[in-house]
Amino acid sequence: MGSRIESRLAELGIVLPEPAVPVANYVPYVIEGSLAVLSGQLPFQDGKLLFSGKVGADVTMEHGQEAARRCFVNLLAQLRRAAGGDLDRVRRVIRLGGFIAAAPSFTHHASVMNGASDLAVAVFGEAGRHARVTVGVPSLPLDAPVEVEGMFALA
Amino acid sequence: MGSRIESRLAELGIVLPEPAVPVANYVPYVIEGSLAVLSGQLPFQDGKLLFSGKVGADVTMEHGQEAARRCFVNLLAQLRRAAGGDLDRVRRVIRLGGFIAAAPSFTHHASVMNGASDLAVAVFGEAGRHARVTVGVPSLPLDAPVEVEGMFALA
Amino acid sequence: MGSRIESRLAELGIVLPEPAVPVANYVPYVIEGSLAVLSGQLPFQDGKLLFSGKVGADVTMEHGQEAARRCFVNLLAQLRRAAGGDLDRVRRVIRLGGFIAAAPSFTHHASVMNGASDLAVAVFGEAGRHARVTVGVPSLPLDAPVEVEGMFALA
Repeated sequence: MGSRIESRLAELGIVLPEPAVPVANYVPYVIEGSLAVLSGQLPFQDGKLLFSGKVGADVTMEHGQEAARRCFVNLLAQLRRAAGGDLDRVRRVIRLGGFIAAAPSFTHHASVMNGASDLAVAVFGEAGRHARVTVGVPSLPLDAPVEVEGMFALA
Repeated sequence: MGSRIESRLAELGIVLPEPAVPVANYVPYVIEGSLAVLSGQLPFQDGKLLFSGKVGADVTMEHGQEAARRCFVNLLAQLRRAAGGDLDRVRRVIRLGGFIAAAPSFTHHASVMNGASDLAVAVFGEAGRHARVTVGVPSLPLDAPVEVEGMFALA
Repeated sequence: MGSRIESRLAELGIVLPEPAVPVANYVPYVIEGSLAVLSGQLPFQDGKLLFSGKVGADVTMEHGQEAARRCFVNLLAQLRRAAGGDLDRVRRVIRLGGFIAAAPSFTHHASVMNGASDLAVAVFGEAGRHARVTVGVPSLPLDAPVEVEGMFALA
């Protein structure tokens, strides 16, 4: 019997990348009890950022959402490793923290972050519905437009 | 015997609103073990933001504090639902995350956030004393001046 | 037999300060089960900020890293108290949240935050390797250049 979540990823046409290797003294995830705490992910794809700059200025809303979605794909890649290769062990998406690089006049943070939240629910169903916090920031590492961190419960 | 915390809210003249319904694929709270993780709340009252704009510019310090207090009222409304209607089950306010929309020159974030922290202690007493992080941000969803998220322990 | 971590601090030439007393209705840490959740720390030393202003503008990269390192020293001081005086009880650094005050054009947040992350590993070894989120912010309390919060597991 195949994995339920892997089948769902295939249906959605999502291929998880090799999880990025940390380039500093931190790690992509820490497991504590049933909690998996994941580091903030940037919208990397094939080794480079999908987009860079500020959402609403250099980066359109649509691309901002795509960037948020990509951050969640990268969280999934790390999460699979955290779960010993078995995403069916993910019991719940607990919390996503979304940081949107944007000007002071920007107000559509929630729509951008939906790129991540919608994918969480598409992949995990009801277990994908999470608490979240979404805020603007002036700048992110490497001029990324979006960064998303996550906390998950493992079975 | 009435609820201890509901009595305290009445003494403080606080009427909790109907908890806001999420407008996207996230939820107001997730319960994991004894932890209740709540989504970031904006200073909504009667369906609209109490204030909008940046604290120290469009919004005075006093109004910023009032906005932070209101965010905590909205956290309480969600928390009551998370606790099955019984706020007496709240064992501890663990952590509040405060995001203050402000200019680069702003330095009084802590005072603004005290609007939320003071109410936490007014409502829960010693159990309301929490860890917190308070930072400035350039912008928040819908041009809100303050957003506050929370983590709580339930009995 | 002396403390392993205290010996390590001595080797590193680090003297932990008296933990700062909170000046508002929040506390430096909350313990919930095996989790110690610590409030955001600023780079205070001997009662004043090591540096103030924005990293990459008023504050050099090197001083930004030093500020991040100092934030972690201050987390350690609080953590020692949280652990009843015994840092050997710290089982894991779970998560650090790093906020770097910087202009929209800044991109080197990760390097700045390494000041904290490198010290975590220098002090705790493998147990110091943590999940982290690092973002830019326009401003921090008291014009601090860096603020770092932490979550730790205690034995």
